[in-house]
Amino acid sequence: MTITNEIEILLVEDNPNDVELTLRALKKNNLTNRVQVVKDGAEALEYIFANGAYAYRKVEHHPRVILLDLKLPKVDGLEVLRRIKSDERTRVIPVVVLTSSKEERDLVESYKLGANSYITKPLDFESFVKSVAELGLYWLLLNQPPR
Amino acid sequence: MTITNEIEILLVEDNPNDVELTLRALKKNNLTNRVQVVKDGAEALEYIFANGAYAYRKVEHHPRVILLDLKLPKVDGLEVLRRIKSDERTRVIPVVVLTSSKEERDLVESYKLGANSYITKPLDFESFVKSVAELGLYWLLLNQPPR
Repeated sequence: MTITNEIEILLVEDNPNDVELTLRALKKNNLTNRVQVVKDGAEALEYIFANGAYAYRKVEHHPRVILLDLKLPKVDGLEVLRRIKSDERTRVIPVVVLTSSKEERDLVESYKLGANSYITKPLDFESFVKSVAELGLYWLLLNQPPR
Repeated sequence: MTITNEIEILLVEDNPNDVELTLRALKKNNLTNRVQVVKDGAEALEYIFANGAYAYRKVEHHPRVILLDLKLPKVDGLEVLRRIKSDERTRVIPVVVLTSSKEERDLVESYKLGANSYITKPLDFESFVKSVAELGLYWLLLNQPPR
């Protein structure tokens, strides 16, 4: 984690176990150089819109991808997604919903709000690590982000 | 290619070499079961909106992902993307722009119109096949589509 260079992955996740597993999976693929972890929806918005504790940032410095949990304290994930995708400055940032929710409502609402992708967290450890590694490689190496 | 089962991949591509390479890459990963190829933007729209030659389809039967070239005959790719993403019935379909264009304008405009991902076609054969295989695995196996 660093605050000086441009961040490549913004991980919005309140569950410490999932944070640890995600970082471990990224590390296995050498993708942890620049990960910022925020633990609730309010902090995610401060980071993305460069205010509050993150007022030193520039909102134009987009992470390459945001990994967004849905069930978050303070401001829930769908609201964070709505705010990102309804602001001209931030709507081009790829947002991958990474959630344990398999509810049809969350799935459809996420896509309607403009989520770029929706991934259900696998329940077992190994599949979780494999999925995170694959999505990290896809969004950091294959996908071309808007500059 | 089949017209009876639900299609998983809609490939919108006018270049026969790129079609062949893409199908070959998908086949290597056993992902060609249900690919529909359309060769221009007008045919893509007919397929997606279930009219013209594709009036037998139901518009609600979404492919799991649309791979969309930008430089297309008749109706260009950005216009196809705009139409998909501005219609309530189709905007939830994941659209991956797969193009040789590295122009900043195409990149930013694609994301603004709601492209889920943007991938630049690698110039060499091997990298092209590898990229298509990876994106096929990501969108067919990892990503959860709206049902």
